[in-house]
Amino acid sequence: MEQPIHPVLLCGGAGTRLWPLSRKSYPKQFVPLVGDESPFQASARRLSGDGFAAPSVVTAADFRFVVIEQLASIEMVPADVLIEPAPKNTAAAVCAAALALEARTPAALMLVAPSDHVIPDAARFREAIRAAAPAAEVGRLVTFGIRPDRPETGYGWLELSERPDSAFSPMPQPLRSFVEKPDFATAEQLLARGMYLWNAGIFLFSTTAILQAFERYAPETLAATSAAFEAAEQDLSFTRLGPEAWDRLPDISIDYAVMERAENLTVVPYGGAWSDLGDWQAVWRETASDAAAVVTKGPATAIDCTGTLLQATSEAQELVGIGLTDIIAVAMSDAVLVAHKDRAQDVKQVVATLKAKGAPQAETTPRDYRPWGWCESLVTRPRFQVKRILVHPGAALSLQSHYHRAEHWIVVEGTAKVTVEDAVKLVTENQSVYVPLGAIHRIENPGKLPLTLIEVQTGAYLGEDDIIRYEDVYARGQGAKG
Amino acid sequence: MEQPIHPVLLCGGAGTRLWPLSRKSYPKQFVPLVGDESPFQASARRLSGDGFAAPSVVTAADFRFVVIEQLASIEMVPADVLIEPAPKNTAAAVCAAALALEARTPAALMLVAPSDHVIPDAARFREAIRAAAPAAEVGRLVTFGIRPDRPETGYGWLELSERPDSAFSPMPQPLRSFVEKPDFATAEQLLARGMYLWNAGIFLFSTTAILQAFERYAPETLAATSAAFEAAEQDLSFTRLGPEAWDRLPDISIDYAVMERAENLTVVPYGGAWSDLGDWQAVWRETASDAAAVVTKGPATAIDCTGTLLQATSEAQELVGIGLTDIIAVAMSDAVLVAHKDRAQDVKQVVATLKAKGAPQAETTPRDYRPWGWCESLVTRPRFQVKRILVHPGAALSLQSHYHRAEHWIVVEGTAKVTVEDAVKLVTENQSVYVPLGAIHRIENPGKLPLTLIEVQTGAYLGEDDIIRYEDVYARGQGAKG
Repeated sequence: MEQPIHPVLLCGGAGTRLWPLSRKSYPKQFVPLVGDESPFQASARRLSGDGFAAPSVVTAADFRFVVIEQLASIEMVPADVLIEPAPKNTAAAVCAAALALEARTPAALMLVAPSDHVIPDAARFREAIRAAAPAAEVGRLVTFGIRPDRPETGYGWLELSERPDSAFSPMPQPLRSFVEKPDFATAEQLLARGMYLWNAGIFLFSTTAILQAFERYAPETLAATSAAFEAAEQDLSFTRLGPEAWDRLPDISIDYAVMERAENLTVVPYGGAWSDLGDWQAVWRETASDAAAVVTKGPATAIDCTGTLLQATSEAQELVGIGLTDIIAVAMSDAVLVAHKDRAQDVKQVVATLKAKGAPQAETTPRDYRPWGWCESLVTRPRFQVKRILVHPGAALSLQSHYHRAEHWIVVEGTAKVTVEDAVKLVTENQSVYVPLGAIHRIENPGKLPLTLIEVQTGAYLGEDDIIRYEDVYARGQGAKG
Repeated sequence: MEQPIHPVLLCGGAGTRLWPLSRKSYPKQFVPLVGDESPFQASARRLSGDGFAAPSVVTAADFRFVVIEQLASIEMVPADVLIEPAPKNTAAAVCAAALALEARTPAALMLVAPSDHVIPDAARFREAIRAAAPAAEVGRLVTFGIRPDRPETGYGWLELSERPDSAFSPMPQPLRSFVEKPDFATAEQLLARGMYLWNAGIFLFSTTAILQAFERYAPETLAATSAAFEAAEQDLSFTRLGPEAWDRLPDISIDYAVMERAENLTVVPYGGAWSDLGDWQAVWRETASDAAAVVTKGPATAIDCTGTLLQATSEAQELVGIGLTDIIAVAMSDAVLVAHKDRAQDVKQVVATLKAKGAPQAETTPRDYRPWGWCESLVTRPRFQVKRILVHPGAALSLQSHYHRAEHWIVVEGTAKVTVEDAVKLVTENQSVYVPLGAIHRIENPGKLPLTLIEVQTGAYLGEDDIIRYEDVYARGQGAKG
């Protein structure tokens, strides 16, 4: 490769079909659904190393610290983290990433990839990217086509100009047309004809070529995104795009806005395995060895089951299935899903139902990720709440006080530096601190190991919004969480 | 009724087929499986009021405080609580209860009933008992026969001398014979012939008559039980039967030991509804309105399900089913069961499997019931553990110390009287106490309201057996739990 390729990872989305593991507050791209890494981490790693520059990430404000933490834990640092003020689909995200990259490295090659896909054969995928680079360098918009193995109605398809060779080599060729998500009969025909691949939403092009295409086919998107980029504010290492201009953007995908109208399109066939982990059936399919296979994860036990996924997420919760056929069961401490595998698509209904009845499980997880670590509610009652809090080495909670609650902290792992009013002291394992109602306080982890503490809150009102913030290294405002 | 009837409630059993709700440490008779009361409470209430004396209870040592607490919460006090040193089946239990009752009230009438059955129409059941009393008074051994509604192979059957009337009136009649648990074809014939009822293991007889029957048909059981009763020790309000004599007892049911051999047998037909809650299918059947019915309990949501039971046990855990047919799903904080309804009988396999892999969920519940209240582990890690502890008004934990752990207590509801070494103080909501490793300490609830505290333990070893006990109002020994 002549020129380095700049990965652009899109990870602002929040699907509901993998509930309860995937929730609005912590969606599937950050959850280790298959293997030990999250799909986001696996995507970043896949697009790293020889020939790749540091990635750009486009995400939502809520996920900015998760992005940094998940990349840090695989020893990566992003080049850019662009914060979308609101979800506006992929056209705006790609356009913003192109503008940021063009400002940094003119005429750079960018590889746009969703971060919630599973591509087990990273080497083969990188080979396809390498094969696509010369076309992108001469100004073509390259899309990657996935070899289909079933008549899938959930994806768009790509029409080839010629049939791939028997090895399904990644030979670039002109793209003939995009095919909208087909019905089942049409999908069967597309599969049988051998001239159609799945559209995975993975693209390679130069910033020059894609910005020209925006100018020609989606000038209003380019104008609004440019304005949002010019109005962007730098916040720590994040680039917060200007919300006013962003608000004017249409909700439109890069496919509709640009790709389906452009003429300089190239497709590179990809013959390896791929999954978008679109629903629990897909997760089962990715991990099962055959159609009768039973998949168990965590402390799960299957007795006489077939075609079933039993996923336990906590070492403290045993999940047992007996005599099940084609069942998905996912157990978490605050939510359990049991679904027939053919109804995996309807999990989104669950989220709507739970949201309508006001259940927090619809959108938030028990573990609440913050810039400094995470906290998890262990028990909540009208006048008290017990939380487990983990603070990363070197991290600090904001200097804060509460009107309605007192807090007891007991350090159980690591060392805390605790400020209560004017006193500052080190608190180590097995020591406790009392923070009276109204007292100004802060916890820091000055050590090299994680700090774990148990917090017992007592008071008439225990909402997270009872917080007055005096100083915050993470630049969060009043009323924002802990 | 001339003479009061003395209920004898058998509640020492520990079935495994209703796991995870029913576990060895807290079996189904104490769990509110159907309605708000436990089957034990419902049985005690059903056999109370006009014509009934206070009940005798025969149970295991582990359940003695649960028995007292569950009766107290429905404002009942038992006449006797007999503690079996080991489970020895129903012959020994009935014999011991007869001896204790005979010592207290010679020639009394005793109504023996398992405490894990559901009999919704208590008035009709009492009417059957009243109808049976005259026969029992003249020395007959009366058994109650349940009107069968299906060819059940899980029960023994009773052969009548004459067909019950169309109203299924509780008319006593001679019992012709006992029929062992039949195969399905035989059960279908028994059902069709209309001369056979289910044997529910409910009996009415005088102490005189049953002790005579033991003397005649099971003299070794009578001898060993008499020796165990004579060697019994009074422990608070409990009668602990002598363990050495008890050990010599054969493991045999009252049916095999006495009833199937005796000649003075009467049967009283009972036409109302009855269930032994033998497995999850029975629990579903008891609560479902028809064969297609979906039963949800707790925060459970069923979407497009049929013939399914979704039972959530904690307000903090949402259970959702989608597109399920004939599925039982039971969610608890530490264990989740998903079983096909036809495989309900195989739940006992789960318990064996979990026991083999050393999972505590096989036999113990997250909430651990003690004489003074209960405690529940919220989080357990190698060097710390967080527990929620509830102490009943007036109750006290033992005076104790630990070699390997320190404890922090934070009172979140009520008032505690806390002793640490020589200091005694009252600790109220939002105050905390530190108990260093090795310090002698005690918690009491001197108030009128329940006391809730959060305990954070830290130390190298956190096992329940690290306890040195100095004084205990509940007369428990070293190493016994908290």
